[in-house]
Amino acid sequence: MAKELKNFTKRSDNYSQWYNELVVKADLAEQSAVRGCMVIKPYGYAIWEKMQQTLDKMFKETGVQNAYFPLLIPKSFLCREAEHVEGFAKECAIVTHYRLKNDPDGNGVIVDPAAKLEEELIVRPTSETIIWGTYKNWIHSWRDLPLLCNQWANVMRWEMRTRMFLRTSEFLWQEGHCAHATAEESEKRTVQMINLYADFAEKYMAMPVIQGVKSETERFAGAVNTYTIEALMQDGKALQSGTSHNLGQNFAKAFDVTFVNKENKPEYVWANSWGVSTRLMGALIMTHSDDNGLVLPPHLAPIQVVIVPIYKDEAGRQAITEKILPFIDELKQLGISVKYDDADNKRPGFKFADYEVKGVPVRLAIGQRDLENGTVELMRRDTLEKETVEFEGLAGKIRTLLEDIQDNLYKKALAYREKMTYTVDTYEEFKEQIEKGGFILAHWDGTPETEEKIKEETKATIRCIPLKGDTTPGKCMVTGKPSARRVIFARAY
Amino acid sequence: MAKELKNFTKRSDNYSQWYNELVVKADLAEQSAVRGCMVIKPYGYAIWEKMQQTLDKMFKETGVQNAYFPLLIPKSFLCREAEHVEGFAKECAIVTHYRLKNDPDGNGVIVDPAAKLEEELIVRPTSETIIWGTYKNWIHSWRDLPLLCNQWANVMRWEMRTRMFLRTSEFLWQEGHCAHATAEESEKRTVQMINLYADFAEKYMAMPVIQGVKSETERFAGAVNTYTIEALMQDGKALQSGTSHNLGQNFAKAFDVTFVNKENKPEYVWANSWGVSTRLMGALIMTHSDDNGLVLPPHLAPIQVVIVPIYKDEAGRQAITEKILPFIDELKQLGISVKYDDADNKRPGFKFADYEVKGVPVRLAIGQRDLENGTVELMRRDTLEKETVEFEGLAGKIRTLLEDIQDNLYKKALAYREKMTYTVDTYEEFKEQIEKGGFILAHWDGTPETEEKIKEETKATIRCIPLKGDTTPGKCMVTGKPSARRVIFARAY
Repeated sequence: MAKELKNFTKRSDNYSQWYNELVVKADLAEQSAVRGCMVIKPYGYAIWEKMQQTLDKMFKETGVQNAYFPLLIPKSFLCREAEHVEGFAKECAIVTHYRLKNDPDGNGVIVDPAAKLEEELIVRPTSETIIWGTYKNWIHSWRDLPLLCNQWANVMRWEMRTRMFLRTSEFLWQEGHCAHATAEESEKRTVQMINLYADFAEKYMAMPVIQGVKSETERFAGAVNTYTIEALMQDGKALQSGTSHNLGQNFAKAFDVTFVNKENKPEYVWANSWGVSTRLMGALIMTHSDDNGLVLPPHLAPIQVVIVPIYKDEAGRQAITEKILPFIDELKQLGISVKYDDADNKRPGFKFADYEVKGVPVRLAIGQRDLENGTVELMRRDTLEKETVEFEGLAGKIRTLLEDIQDNLYKKALAYREKMTYTVDTYEEFKEQIEKGGFILAHWDGTPETEEKIKEETKATIRCIPLKGDTTPGKCMVTGKPSARRVIFARAY
Repeated sequence: MAKELKNFTKRSDNYSQWYNELVVKADLAEQSAVRGCMVIKPYGYAIWEKMQQTLDKMFKETGVQNAYFPLLIPKSFLCREAEHVEGFAKECAIVTHYRLKNDPDGNGVIVDPAAKLEEELIVRPTSETIIWGTYKNWIHSWRDLPLLCNQWANVMRWEMRTRMFLRTSEFLWQEGHCAHATAEESEKRTVQMINLYADFAEKYMAMPVIQGVKSETERFAGAVNTYTIEALMQDGKALQSGTSHNLGQNFAKAFDVTFVNKENKPEYVWANSWGVSTRLMGALIMTHSDDNGLVLPPHLAPIQVVIVPIYKDEAGRQAITEKILPFIDELKQLGISVKYDDADNKRPGFKFADYEVKGVPVRLAIGQRDLENGTVELMRRDTLEKETVEFEGLAGKIRTLLEDIQDNLYKKALAYREKMTYTVDTYEEFKEQIEKGGFILAHWDGTPETEEKIKEETKATIRCIPLKGDTTPGKCMVTGKPSARRVIFARAY
């Protein structure tokens, strides 16, 4: 059993298969009976809940409030903002009827043809349209602004090729939708939120990200500007991990949302929207995990410390438990989440393998001899290092260790990204390098045509025009035309 | 403005209209552009979040874990459990297509007829079918049991007549789904959860409830037994506020979910499910609110204390703010949520009215003279009593006062229910009493036929067979046949 648990495809053999197996073996999620939709299992959901709670607190500290808008959007709403309907994918789940009836042939139920909707309803792929349709009635004067709402919700996009967490037809996310009185204020909020996402990625997910602006081609449909955070996965592919869109007045105009400004004149509202999704689970998995399974940063691990007693009989178990219970209290006092697994229907070896696959940052094992010596065996998941440590004063040491692990994971991921970031000057070099993966910094002439050509020939896209870093102008590696600065290319999820 | 805010229909004039107006004026929710679906506004959602967080913690303390299952359910799944499909309402949102396309006539988008699903998908009205279809792969041995999952989700039922929070096509809820090795254990969990709901209703919502068992007619489709908590609203109508269903082995048999028991024999799993929804918001509103607006129990109030400064000029505002800031810290230290509203774009009178309509439990007003005297004006929302109190030592007093208000609201609601609970012996009496509203304790012969006759003639339903109270047998008020005990009748939401 223990061996079977750890019997993984190796990353170097087939990265994609390694990922799929890990998601299942670590009990994070599984395919459902509904095409492209996953079931998020309790352990996976517990990680998502930690992400949610952390982000929710961060949002609220900036003045954002939660609300809830309808799941279904009238078809006509999607067409109101011209660029939005033009650019947004049309693969959506469409509700056309509202009643089932018993099959006259006695075979269960059929759709009642008499219950056809006058206007079809779309399961929200994103909520700008319904929200701006609603904001129209909430906003009248500059006194009503800014309006800062977020919703935690499920959304659907009928994806053809799905992968758990990375791309599923239904996924969970949050979408923030803000309305402001000035363009400056809206831009400031757009940037504030991408900064917040970057902070979250780095401090909680231990995942280094590059902040930047999307090229026109990669921009959100209906946005004036899209900010993104981009992370590099262990196979050298990029993963877009969060976006924040400055929508200008596009949606306000489409939905006629105006306010009376301080000069008593009517004006269209300035908007932005921003979101992260369960895709972050995929990013988290692929940033840190190894051939033994999941590796979780302590700040997001539902179980930070697991304690496994090793005993021969009931008396042995009791002796260990007696010693361990006050220690567990001590850990809890320090805000550390701990699980004591003394279940007697599984062997210690199985438990070790299971918690390793599940990525629990610290494992303690305590047996009869440890009890006598006042020691425990400690293993840290990130390095797989084992050592025998003194029981005395252990709780405090574990607190420090968890921070060390968090820090180590971030540094490791950052070192990997730095190693995998290349600067190239010619298209030949570029084509060679892109096959090996990584972020490539190269000059581009700023046109969608060149961008498209590069994508077609190399499958690489512009991940972003970075906000920081070298801004020296140069010449486009493809056309030789002037380039304002190097941008980041990669193949991406 | 202030007058307009408080310009309500009175409960005694038109209770239903009073409710609708209150939901809008207190900024809790509003109708959306989608038939029967509401938008939950930030203030309403903040109350729901407090409910969620409290319940979620209570669930987890009993060992329940959260998970997430797909929004869409294949049509064939609904037909697997015979009683479920027979008894469950067929008014559902049905997804038949998965793609839009540009209208060749240039009028926005149309449904792409080429993108018709082979099997229609139903937006979940409840998730027993998809969850038991999933559990089949999770449960193999007694070691996998009990399995205790909950999900927080949106669900849809295509209701013909909707009212915000009370009955909407889309609503938010939690649904717990447990699998057990024995009938006894499953029954125990079913009862445990209805007890938990009753606890929550009484301690947090300050809403007294009667726990009982549903009659066969009112039982959940596919359940062996349904437990309920029933509350009495201020118009004398009952509101079912939470249910817990013992599903026996019905769903396990329908979805072939078996486990190998300790004797190494295959056996069907025992199931239960339990849920509460945003309907609780309706219950909360109707239990406590008055002709001046919402009245919130402190345990669920997003803002427990609001402080309104009254000043003539900027210097006056600053003097008050200086005095108030340390006091706000003190309140926060005590875990009290407080809002200091010194916005200068609204007059104090407007603010008073607004917070009264929004049901903030305690309002403090502080002006220039108060500053000199070391006093503030305190108003409690439940009684609308105002008094001038010493500023010194106020934080501690407010903590006590909030508990007093919580307690007072519960006692008031309980006194109302007791006053409105009647025992009748004849059907004549019953028909007369039911017109006046309230819970009626009467004898019933236990047959669906008599129950149906009473419902048709009086619009009253059996709310429950109470778990506690007088169990003396008697004779049915309609047929004169033997009755095991009195049951509770009422007209209901």
